[in-house]
Amino acid sequence: MTGTAAIIGGGVIGGGWAARFLLNGWDVRAFDPDPDAERKIGEVLGNARRSLPGLSDAPLPPEGRLSFHDNIASAVAGAAWIQESVPERLDLKHVTLAAIQAACAETAIIGSSTSGFRPSQLQDGAARPGQIVVAHPFNPVYLLPLIELVPTVANPPETVDAAKALLTSLGLYPLHVRQEIDAHIADRFLEAVWREALWLVRDGVATTEEIDNAIRYGFGIRWAQMGLFETYRVAGGEAGMKHFIAQFGPCLSWPWTKLMDVPELTDDLIGRIADQSDAQSGRHSIRDLERIRDNNLVAMMRALKQQDWGAGALLNAHDAALKPGAGLSGGVDKLETLDRLVLTLSRAVPLDWTDYNGHMTESRYLDAFASATDRFMELIGCDSDYIADPAGGSYFTAETHIRHLDEALAGTRIRVETQLLLGQGKKLHLFHRMYDGDRLLATGEHFLLHVSLETRRPCAPSAAIESALVRLSAAQSGLPWPEGAGAAIRKRS
Amino acid sequence: MTGTAAIIGGGVIGGGWAARFLLNGWDVRAFDPDPDAERKIGEVLGNARRSLPGLSDAPLPPEGRLSFHDNIASAVAGAAWIQESVPERLDLKHVTLAAIQAACAETAIIGSSTSGFRPSQLQDGAARPGQIVVAHPFNPVYLLPLIELVPTVANPPETVDAAKALLTSLGLYPLHVRQEIDAHIADRFLEAVWREALWLVRDGVATTEEIDNAIRYGFGIRWAQMGLFETYRVAGGEAGMKHFIAQFGPCLSWPWTKLMDVPELTDDLIGRIADQSDAQSGRHSIRDLERIRDNNLVAMMRALKQQDWGAGALLNAHDAALKPGAGLSGGVDKLETLDRLVLTLSRAVPLDWTDYNGHMTESRYLDAFASATDRFMELIGCDSDYIADPAGGSYFTAETHIRHLDEALAGTRIRVETQLLLGQGKKLHLFHRMYDGDRLLATGEHFLLHVSLETRRPCAPSAAIESALVRLSAAQSGLPWPEGAGAAIRKRS
Repeated sequence: MTGTAAIIGGGVIGGGWAARFLLNGWDVRAFDPDPDAERKIGEVLGNARRSLPGLSDAPLPPEGRLSFHDNIASAVAGAAWIQESVPERLDLKHVTLAAIQAACAETAIIGSSTSGFRPSQLQDGAARPGQIVVAHPFNPVYLLPLIELVPTVANPPETVDAAKALLTSLGLYPLHVRQEIDAHIADRFLEAVWREALWLVRDGVATTEEIDNAIRYGFGIRWAQMGLFETYRVAGGEAGMKHFIAQFGPCLSWPWTKLMDVPELTDDLIGRIADQSDAQSGRHSIRDLERIRDNNLVAMMRALKQQDWGAGALLNAHDAALKPGAGLSGGVDKLETLDRLVLTLSRAVPLDWTDYNGHMTESRYLDAFASATDRFMELIGCDSDYIADPAGGSYFTAETHIRHLDEALAGTRIRVETQLLLGQGKKLHLFHRMYDGDRLLATGEHFLLHVSLETRRPCAPSAAIESALVRLSAAQSGLPWPEGAGAAIRKRS
Repeated sequence: MTGTAAIIGGGVIGGGWAARFLLNGWDVRAFDPDPDAERKIGEVLGNARRSLPGLSDAPLPPEGRLSFHDNIASAVAGAAWIQESVPERLDLKHVTLAAIQAACAETAIIGSSTSGFRPSQLQDGAARPGQIVVAHPFNPVYLLPLIELVPTVANPPETVDAAKALLTSLGLYPLHVRQEIDAHIADRFLEAVWREALWLVRDGVATTEEIDNAIRYGFGIRWAQMGLFETYRVAGGEAGMKHFIAQFGPCLSWPWTKLMDVPELTDDLIGRIADQSDAQSGRHSIRDLERIRDNNLVAMMRALKQQDWGAGALLNAHDAALKPGAGLSGGVDKLETLDRLVLTLSRAVPLDWTDYNGHMTESRYLDAFASATDRFMELIGCDSDYIADPAGGSYFTAETHIRHLDEALAGTRIRVETQLLLGQGKKLHLFHRMYDGDRLLATGEHFLLHVSLETRRPCAPSAAIESALVRLSAAQSGLPWPEGAGAAIRKRS
């Protein structure tokens, strides 16, 4: 699903929305009265370009077109989704929403990035309340999947469903908040923790750095994957959740937290926090910290992706939705047409594949070639069904020969083209070429054996796979033997 | 630093402490009156053995010896650290601490795992208050680094310093809480969030699963790497932390959170939470969830390790402390003695190197060989100083030939032995053999070129490196040419 989106209000949040839409193939029309808006959105987009595409193991659609407009009416023309991210003042939100509704399509959905206002407050006095919802994102919007989607009874169910489908197609996770409350859900927790943290700093119990360490070395990293309740479920063990909560009861009334009071934000407290934060993080510029944060998020989200859990499971689901249109060579029914090299991989080099210089590290070349081999196996019918079948099997790599010819940077769009050198009985001999455009980066020659997963010993594959290999071999018979294939590491001494 | 530790009180927390000590080479003496204690500690230890050793990129010391004892006096004999993890009742803690102090060495440190009591409460009436501190861990203790170390004025500064050094040597991060308060630091946040979550479930605003998703798809994954203040510092942008906090002021007094009230934990609310939790996670057993959690934590912590940030930076510091005793072959001054294969890698296969079957994935063999090559480069003087020197350079891999001979499971202790085939001018030709015990898992043949990092073109290395290669080559001249080296991928057609 692609189309045209309008971004009303730039800055970090609006810019993040713009990047999320653009990199998922949408055209984006932006309006922000700030003369610096174009630069600011450009900076967010720059961060997004280096981090988002590689998060996906499937190629994203080509980037959409970004245009800047002098007024709201021009920006919203033709937009199917309009995202409002102006400052948190209700009067300003009302004026902005009125201007949007005066010009936008009646079928468009208007999402508000508000963290504090309820959707009924935004809809109050609107020309068409049913087209306005809260769609509250989390910074950085181009990486974090959570969107709190808060409708009211004024929104038709079809609008809510359409909003969910559209947000999901952007790789987002719309959390449908069924009952509007102040601050939605997540910010209620943030608010509670923030207040408690202010007390700890004010009372001199802990510095900002000590508080951050107390979070990120302990429960923070737990919450990144399981949240609160599932974490406690595991901690509670076999006795069960009911037992665990019941025993938690008494301490709830202990006067641990100071949240009954609101700390006074004096100049002294503000100054103390700012000073401590400088001592903690001042050696990094904000730009550096943004890049460090994005690197960390991409690396952790891709780690969760490998485990198919949490934010990583969302990414895998998004990849699965992207794959049909990924442009890779087609399946077993199209083998006769593959009379040239087969496209088995097309992706961006992700941040976690690179070293501190931003170059793809040695072992990730093999990672990419292994993915290309997996895709080739799918192509000839050795897919997940075949591998799961007790009567089936799989191909195991016996030997690999990689030649590194050129370097690739994070974000580079690489592709792998594959030639079948031999597919006979249990033997499979493949030759991969990895390119960035016309630049040959590496070649990977792989000899695989078909193995029974029961005995873990070599055996012939199914007749269907053997026949697929014969057909592909015939189709590719006109291709020359690749330069560098079948050779030993050159004895250059 | 290794020695003997005593664990008083088993269960998930005591078992986690036992595993942390054992896998870092300490002997552990355990006491728990529960007849199931041995089984329970064994289960935690089983989880730890599959996840902790591979977290490290350096080999851990050999595992210590675990013994079970009938009484506290026997358990604490000869222990330098005694960890108390009995249930959270002050009278029980006092009785236990008295029994420990009646038998333990006066030089031992007694840490309490209490999450709620202040150290002065524990020290109250003790024979030697100065030897008791709070050392509050986070579950799973064998993976999460945070320990809240809370002393009082009764503890001599040397005791606090010794406790910090000992905990750090276990790969833990002792957060020195300088002023004792109820619930220390982290649990004040957990308590605040927990209360707010109970309200949301009670009021039907969100289910346990929706709350977990609101955390783990948004701020949870942010907090895993930067915590609260640094995250806001980045979000605040160039305007600075002071400006950001000041603007936050007004909304602190908004009545968002309901934390002023304590929710009543009725049977109805307990039942609702338990039911929702079953719906959310009931398809996984607690054992499965433990493994899933550990896989996720290891994968994320190793992702942060690669970024050298947060919990990952702690792991790198711990590896650096382990490395001198890691048993790998020595440096450039010992080359003449390396007349056999050089030990260039010794490590456990980490969870994030394996596929869903627990087998090491293809590209991680190259990951291991690349680490072995890095170690070999250090050995001949191509170390981080040389690479950072503008007049220096580095070796880039030009070709790689891997033969996969056998499989390796998560947790397997692998080692790589390396033979120098050629080191002359810009050329370096290495042959790695990867073993699990006597089992040859794979060989890696690598041809590298020395490259100037300025021009990125091949050139000769420094005279010191050339001389090191000549010396090593002479030392290894008696080794036979390795089987499989210098060969092409076998033409088996």
